[in-house]
Amino acid sequence: MLNRRDFVRLAAATSTVASLPASLLSQAPRKLRYAAVGLGRISLQHFMPGTKVSQYGEITGLVSGHPDKAHKYAEEYGIPASNIYNYENYDQLKDNPNIDAVYIGLPNSMHAEYTIRAAKAGKHVLCEKPMANTVADCRAMIEACRKANRKLMIGYRCQLESTFLQAKELLRGGAIGKIQAIESANGFNIGPNEWRSDAKFAGGGPLMDVGIYSLNACRFFLGEEPGDIKATAYTDPSDPRFKGVEETIGWVMKFPSGVIATCNTTYGAPMESFIRLHGSSGVLEVFGFGYEGIHMTVSSRVRKDIQPHPDTRKDPGQFTTESDYFSRCVLDNKEPGPNGEEGLRDMEAIERIYTAAKKA
Amino acid sequence: MLNRRDFVRLAAATSTVASLPASLLSQAPRKLRYAAVGLGRISLQHFMPGTKVSQYGEITGLVSGHPDKAHKYAEEYGIPASNIYNYENYDQLKDNPNIDAVYIGLPNSMHAEYTIRAAKAGKHVLCEKPMANTVADCRAMIEACRKANRKLMIGYRCQLESTFLQAKELLRGGAIGKIQAIESANGFNIGPNEWRSDAKFAGGGPLMDVGIYSLNACRFFLGEEPGDIKATAYTDPSDPRFKGVEETIGWVMKFPSGVIATCNTTYGAPMESFIRLHGSSGVLEVFGFGYEGIHMTVSSRVRKDIQPHPDTRKDPGQFTTESDYFSRCVLDNKEPGPNGEEGLRDMEAIERIYTAAKKA
Repeated sequence: MLNRRDFVRLAAATSTVASLPASLLSQAPRKLRYAAVGLGRISLQHFMPGTKVSQYGEITGLVSGHPDKAHKYAEEYGIPASNIYNYENYDQLKDNPNIDAVYIGLPNSMHAEYTIRAAKAGKHVLCEKPMANTVADCRAMIEACRKANRKLMIGYRCQLESTFLQAKELLRGGAIGKIQAIESANGFNIGPNEWRSDAKFAGGGPLMDVGIYSLNACRFFLGEEPGDIKATAYTDPSDPRFKGVEETIGWVMKFPSGVIATCNTTYGAPMESFIRLHGSSGVLEVFGFGYEGIHMTVSSRVRKDIQPHPDTRKDPGQFTTESDYFSRCVLDNKEPGPNGEEGLRDMEAIERIYTAAKKA
Repeated sequence: MLNRRDFVRLAAATSTVASLPASLLSQAPRKLRYAAVGLGRISLQHFMPGTKVSQYGEITGLVSGHPDKAHKYAEEYGIPASNIYNYENYDQLKDNPNIDAVYIGLPNSMHAEYTIRAAKAGKHVLCEKPMANTVADCRAMIEACRKANRKLMIGYRCQLESTFLQAKELLRGGAIGKIQAIESANGFNIGPNEWRSDAKFAGGGPLMDVGIYSLNACRFFLGEEPGDIKATAYTDPSDPRFKGVEETIGWVMKFPSGVIATCNTTYGAPMESFIRLHGSSGVLEVFGFGYEGIHMTVSSRVRKDIQPHPDTRKDPGQFTTESDYFSRCVLDNKEPGPNGEEGLRDMEAIERIYTAAKKA
């Protein structure tokens, strides 16, 4: 019998994993085989190339409403035609043993349906943020994956990103003392005719799409859920870009520990995104929630030895990490950190923010 | 008759301004003669030394409850004993022709009374921010100065500061396009036994003292008043520093133009203070509201020629400017920019922020 090291050497030497007997494969550190659902920018430019160079993941299937596009990328990724699906025959994934999981890179409004159908087809699900358009949908997604005994992860890249992890470690270790206040912003100037600014597809505006990074980062760094939430929002009624969604929304949250967080997001300005944490003994600021270049500064009155190590990976490095992380969760049967409950918590807060913004 | 240039030369040569006939003085660019009311840190370390080296102001009187302290500084500033007052005989300022104006550097709760009494004594008033503890007090101060035909200015240094002025000019000129969102924070870690964290003297917590800079800067840069205001606040009930005031408060404001501003302030952390404006075509950030070192960065997609000129003056340079500015307003009979109405507007917003923070 081959041990794991032998297997890795053999696999590297022969690239004939598929031809190995199943008894061997079951012991091997095999790759999680993903079908990418939705061939938009995030799948094509980020998740798929990121997974291609990952250690534990590979793209073995595609789901798209555009056959030409699907066939083009199937060729690029060496995917057989039998592993190409569309939104009608998606449920037939259940009969395909060469696909273990799906990556949902669809517009927000489709996350719930395609997660639930994937779970019913016996596939694990890595779903982009925001998890869904409503709390009810998030709950249904969690329940579907629980019933099917499938893993569910939400694509919170930053929770796996090295600067965020270092920052969290520093904060937990008291590097800036007791955290008192947080400010954060994230936003961009959206173009015309984007599904992201149409409530029907996006469920909301910049809060759902990019403000969620500020919200999630606050929760991630503090490890607690917001209590009091207040908000106000604005949409230019003459701007045709915004179909039922806010243009800009600002909100303030009080956490049980007493931290007050103020966050701002817009589709009307190229924001310099950041999250700044003010503690009794210092300041820690992380710059950017983007696909590369995340870095931080720390000013501490209690620790002089801190060396921030910026994330020097180039895009799609964060997606490689995310893909590998979820693959390992499935292969090792471990619950992902940013699981369905994590996505649900954000959506609960988002619904509360929208409700708060409507209050007089 | 001496002309102005002759007068200046004569004054410089002889320093005998006081002995010149009144007819000459009335034509001369004479200095505004201030009595400093309250000999705390801001008077002693900032306003008085700043005025000492100013072009149009001088300290000719002192008002203090501590005779020893008053006499010590009277000697330093060459002030005759007849120009030293206390809080009981303060109203006798009306009989002193060598004092034109007062600088109110007292705890917030005393601003209204000592402004109104000064106006009744016929003196112009430069009063520190926050203007008073209540909107009602602000209105009474404005009315008292109006009735007495005396100028009233609130000490909003930043409105006279070079970086703020350059920033306002750039924003007005469209350097970052349409302003969409603002984030700001200001705060510090307060020591024990400060009047600033006692509601009786301060009227409120960090919002009144330092958060007001964020509020005022938003209003100053936008040139409009906030509409919707939401807020949340926290005070550690076990922290003896806070006597009836908030420890941290965050608030969000919607302005008529659609700008959403999120602001945060605390007495529990040494904040890196800033105000960041996000526009459709760029970002402008001013760092600091402090006594020196204010600077900015601008990232503009429409203008590549912007050269920020940081304020290189050392403290008390900003107070020299402030003192000179108010002196010129009085001497030239011009209404100050940051007048009583300006202080009132901030106090109206502050009362609304506190009310909003109490709402469920």
